[in-house]
Order: sequence, then structure tokens, then C-alpha cells
Amino acid sequence: MHKKLKGKIRILPTLEVSRKNFHLLYTPGVAEVAREIAKDPQKVFDLTSKGNNVAIITDGSRTLGVGNTIAEASLPVMEGKALFLAQWAKVNAFPLCLATKETKEIVRVCEILSPVFSVFNIEDIAWPRCLEICEELRKKNIVFFHDDQQGVAIVLLAALLNASKIFPFKKDVRICIAGAGAAGYGIFKILHHFGFLNMIVFDKDGIVFRGRKGNNKFLDEIAKNTNKENLKGGKKEAIFGAKIFIGVSTKGNLLDASDIKLMEKPPIIFALSNPDPEILPNEIEKVTKNYIFGSGRPDYQNQINNVLVFPGVLKGLLVKRKPLTLDLQIKIALEIASMVKRPKKNLLLPNPFDKNVTEKIVKMIKKYD
Amino acid sequence: MHKKLKGKIRILPTLEVSRKNFHLLYTPGVAEVAREIAKDPQKVFDLTSKGNNVAIITDGSRTLGVGNTIAEASLPVMEGKALFLAQWAKVNAFPLCLATKETKEIVRVCEILSPVFSVFNIEDIAWPRCLEICEELRKKNIVFFHDDQQGVAIVLLAALLNASKIFPFKKDVRICIAGAGAAGYGIFKILHHFGFLNMIVFDKDGIVFRGRKGNNKFLDEIAKNTNKENLKGGKKEAIFGAKIFIGVSTKGNLLDASDIKLMEKPPIIFALSNPDPEILPNEIEKVTKNYIFGSGRPDYQNQINNVLVFPGVLKGLLVKRKPLTLDLQIKIALEIASMVKRPKKNLLLPNPFDKNVTEKIVKMIKKYD
Repeated sequence: MHKKLKGKIRILPTLEVSRKNFHLLYTPGVAEVAREIAKDPQKVFDLTSKGNNVAIITDGSRTLGVGNTIAEASLPVMEGKALFLAQWAKVNAFPLCLATKETKEIVRVCEILSPVFSVFNIEDIAWPRCLEICEELRKKNIVFFHDDQQGVAIVLLAALLNASKIFPFKKDVRICIAGAGAAGYGIFKILHHFGFLNMIVFDKDGIVFRGRKGNNKFLDEIAKNTNKENLKGGKKEAIFGAKIFIGVSTKGNLLDASDIKLMEKPPIIFALSNPDPEILPNEIEKVTKNYIFGSGRPDYQNQINNVLVFPGVLKGLLVKRKPLTLDLQIKIALEIASMVKRPKKNLLLPNPFDKNVTEKIVKMIKKYD
Repeated sequence: MHKKLKGKIRILPTLEVSRKNFHLLYTPGVAEVAREIAKDPQKVFDLTSKGNNVAIITDGSRTLGVGNTIAEASLPVMEGKALFLAQWAKVNAFPLCLATKETKEIVRVCEILSPVFSVFNIEDIAWPRCLEICEELRKKNIVFFHDDQQGVAIVLLAALLNASKIFPFKKDVRICIAGAGAAGYGIFKILHHFGFLNMIVFDKDGIVFRGRKGNNKFLDEIAKNTNKENLKGGKKEAIFGAKIFIGVSTKGNLLDASDIKLMEKPPIIFALSNPDPEILPNEIEKVTKNYIFGSGRPDYQNQINNVLVFPGVLKGLLVKRKPLTLDLQIKIALEIASMVKRPKKNLLLPNPFDKNVTEKIVKMIKKYD
């Protein structure tokens, strides 16, 4: 299919150039347009495609399903993202797979390209570089969306909010997060900002705690705001007593029935590792039949996929031209959750192929101040 | 018109994503495609849009009709180029207006973007920076096309070749070039490579001669290969005895009848300064009715515009993926000249709206080795 397509997107004219309109579209008429923008740079949004242009930025270091690879190899994946954005949000998204893996250079490239692109979609870049890049972009007031961090966080919170309507819990509920990469950090951030008080995060080195050796600033931030008891230990210690498990560990089959036994019942389990979730329903059912399960897989109940979120969020950011704050992320999650009128164990989120989702997210972002 | 369009190009899907093809276009199927490219990077040309992707690179420093301005202001002009390329050559050209005016940074950005774009179209960048950039790109084996330099040179040589069929001349004909910027340098290069022995170039500081104060390396190269007598002086000394005048001076009305009097008869005058040519036919006619005239203007005979050349050359370079050498530039000029079966004083070049031109250039480049 890829061989036949030779690219999942193409660039087309918005009108046909002819002898009659050449002087308006190009020389000499276009100089007048250029001068107007030079006088008032904000006019670039009225007079060009900039207001609808998204740069999809990656360095190939965490390519979907492949991992660390050359920038060229990430192009088919990024074209896929661009295709979704074109189809679902009518956004001009161009895949820019960069031949550098330096934070500073990637940020500088975004800055240099900011006359043309309104929003930068940071994609599939290794942790912690991706978080460093976001931090630098934020400092420079460059509007960005980091799907692995913010997209996952929004859709997860939406699912969690609807899960709470089935198995009610409060803000002091024990939440265990497996994985402290971009997704783990993003989920921690949104849940913390939402007000969840009782989280614990673990990664390949065990529970994240204050003063853990090798913690970078992002792990430090997690440690400071989770794990009140400053517990140490591994998976078992982390999951013990949790009612909610959120897996973004990239480790398939991380959990088994003995881990589920340690959880509060009925458990809510979001096993988002792709393509192999941290646990599958048949393993959970060895312990209990009463549970909520979600994963990245389309062949199980509750597919939790940021495909649901990113077209609308990017389109919304293009309209708004303001940074995506945590407050706004939460509002979007609430909006998505509210689209499911009667949440059920196997129906937490709207269908990603439902065109209303993108539209509603855009509207929400528009009215948000 | 620009306000209504909000961009002259847009990005569209090459097919519609659906539930049925999602797993092929994106996760998990796309990982297989990514892995194939990682194994053999050349496959990126078969499996993605890269083989058809052109980056239009500018820094806004010599924007058409405006001059040195901010990158944003050059976007409507670059979108125009992208529109032509989309319509006439079915090429994906994306306008990248860069917020930097540093040679090193611009070259580095091209290098960093080379996983996605096969050809870099250098546009409307101030001299001598544009030439420095081209030189650096050539060193790095990055395929580029510099329209101001190479495009103008090709179309000018094509016109000149057909003019020689009307007013015959040999390779020792005296040629006077006004302007030693990107276009003047490009024309000098192609004519020198073609074998013209007797050229003289002048700019705002007068005739370019060996050892002239302030000469940069490009002016030095011109001095070394033109002006055998090492003449000094201004416009009058430069044009004296020339049969051919080529104006790329950006100075409207640089010449008057008294200058034409100094030329060999019948004269061939290409006054390419835009929008005001160096001289207009009514002024030439004060001296002689027997002349050939060409300019950038559509309202006079012989419009000499690189619009004729660049879609075909860029498409050809995408197919060939090899640098545009001077030999190849000459072949393209010969091909364009041959498209006019019976050249006349007022018919030197094919019509830019003739779709065959692009096709024929592409074919020519394809078969060239």
C-alpha cells in the first residue's frame, strides 16, 4: 500500500493559476501582500496558510513500533499523522523528520520555522529529550502540542472520569502509574493538576522517590508530588492498595493475576503499552470479573488512543494561538468525557471515527479563555 | 484574493483513512514500513512522499518586489512558487520561510531537513549569502536549485540561442552583463561554461576587474574569467562595442538611447530588471528599428521569466536526485530553445503556460547522464 501511494499526503493548489490571475497570485500583485505583512506581521494569519499550518516534528528516536531509528524511517509514521490531521481536522500538517537528535538544535529549528508554522506537534522523540524540548519551546512562547505527553494525558483523564461514574472514587484514590517517560510524566501532571492526592509512580528502576539516585528534573518533579510516604521498592510495593492502575511502561505483560490481587476492588486498569498491554482481561479475570479495562488495542473494550484527541487539539491551538495549559488539558478531557452520555464498563470514550469529537474539542478550545 | 484564499496551497490525503485501512496506514502496520526504511534508507523514496518533496527555502532578505523583509512577509511569494510547482509539475513543494539570515544556520536547517525533502529550492535570498549557501549545499551533496542564479541563467541562454538564429553571432561575440548579483553570476557561469569568450560585467561600482577593491570570491571569479583587457570604468565603457546586453541590474531605465548607440548593430537586448526593465523598446527605437528585445514584462515581446524553467527543473531533479551541473543547465537551455520551431524577433521562447515545457524538461533531465 505504501509503495503504491508514495506518500500519504500531497500538496495541492487552493485555486488554479491562469494568465488572468497570475499577476494577483504572483508578481507584481503579491508584493502588495508581502508589504502588508511586513507592516503588520499579524496579517500573515489572514493572508497566508500560516494560520492552518502545523509542523510535525520528530527526530526518529522513539518511532512508533520501532524505537530509536533514523529520521527517514519515521517519515511514514509522521505522514500518517499528517493524513489524519488533513482528513479529520482539515489542517495542513507537514512531517518534518529531523536529522539531529540535539535538544538545542531541534528547538532552534522550530524557532527558525516559526514564520511558517503556527503550531509544532512534537512526536515520537525519546525521553527526556522530548520534555526538554517542550520546556524550551514554552520559554520561547512557541505554541506546541506534545502528543505522547499531553495527548495521552487528556484521553486517559477522560476515560478515568467516565470510569469514576461506574466505580466511584474520590481525589484521594490510590493511583499507580507504571512508566515515568513522556506519557507517565504527562499523566502525572494532569492528574496532579486535577487534584489527585495519592499517586505512586514506578519505572524500570522501581518506585520513584525523593532523592532516588539518577533522578533527572522530571523524575524529581514526580517524586516531589507523588509517593507521600516516600516508599521505595518495586512493582509489588507500588501497586499494593491501588484502585487504579495506569500502565504506560512499554512493557507488555508487566502484570499478572498476583499483582491484581494486591489492588483495591473493583479495580480500574488502563494498560496502554503498545502493541502488548501490561495485562489483558483474561489475566485480570483470574482474580475478579468486576473490573474496568482499557488499552491501546482496538480488539478489546475501551481503546484509549490519542488519535481521538490530537486532531481537535491541534486545530483548536491553530485557532487559539495560545499555549496548551494544564487547565485547558483538563477542560478538553471533561469535554471528551461528556460526549459519552451513559458511560459503561465497555464504553468510556467516544469513537475516534466520530467526526463530532474533533469539532467539539475545537469549539471548546475556542471558547476557553 | 489572498484574504479569501488563506493560503495558496493546502495539504490533502492521498487516500481516505477508515477503520479498514487504519492498521495499514498507521499502527501497527506502519512499523513494518519504518523498519524497511531503517534497513535500507533508499526505500524512503519508494515508500513515502520524500521523492516528490521540495523545500522552498528563503530568509526573506530579497523578497520579490519588496527586498529585505521579515520571513513572514515572504510567505505569500513562496506559496506562489509552491502553487506553480503543485499545478504545473505535481510536486509537493512546501514554503519554508526561515527566521534567520545566517548562512551557516540556513545550510544546517537544510541538512537537518534532508530526511524529508529531496530537493531544496533556494529562493529570494540576498547576495552573496545565496551563493555561499549554494556552495555549502554542494559540498554536502544536498541537491538544490537556485532559481535566481540557475533558473534565470537557463532561460536567458535559451533565449540567446534562439536570438542567434535571427542575428547570428559566434562565441567571441561581445556580451555586456549589467549586474553581478545572483542572476549576473549565474548568467556569467552558464555563458562562460558554454564557451563565450568575450564578456564584460559591471555593477554599481562599475566594471568588474581583477583586483578591484572589495571584490568577494564570486566577483573575483567573474573578474578572472571576463574582461580580458581588464578594463576599468562604468556603464559606457562596459557597453561599448557589445552586441549583446543582458541586464539583471535591478535598475529600471539604466540605459538610454546614447548607450544603445555604443553597441554593435543589430543589437540583442535582454533587460530583465523587474518590474522596470533597464530600457524599453521605444528608447531603443530612437537608435535602430532592427533589434531583439526581451524583458521580464508580459506586456512586451519575449517575456523572459524563470517560471518557464523551474517547475520542470525541480521535477527533473526529484527524479534524477543528482546535482544540477552547468552541463545539465546548458542541455536544458538547448532543449527549451529547440521547442520554438521557427524563432522570430518576437518569439524566442515557448509559452510558460504550455504544459509541454515542464514535461520536456523532465524528460531531458531523466535521460541525461
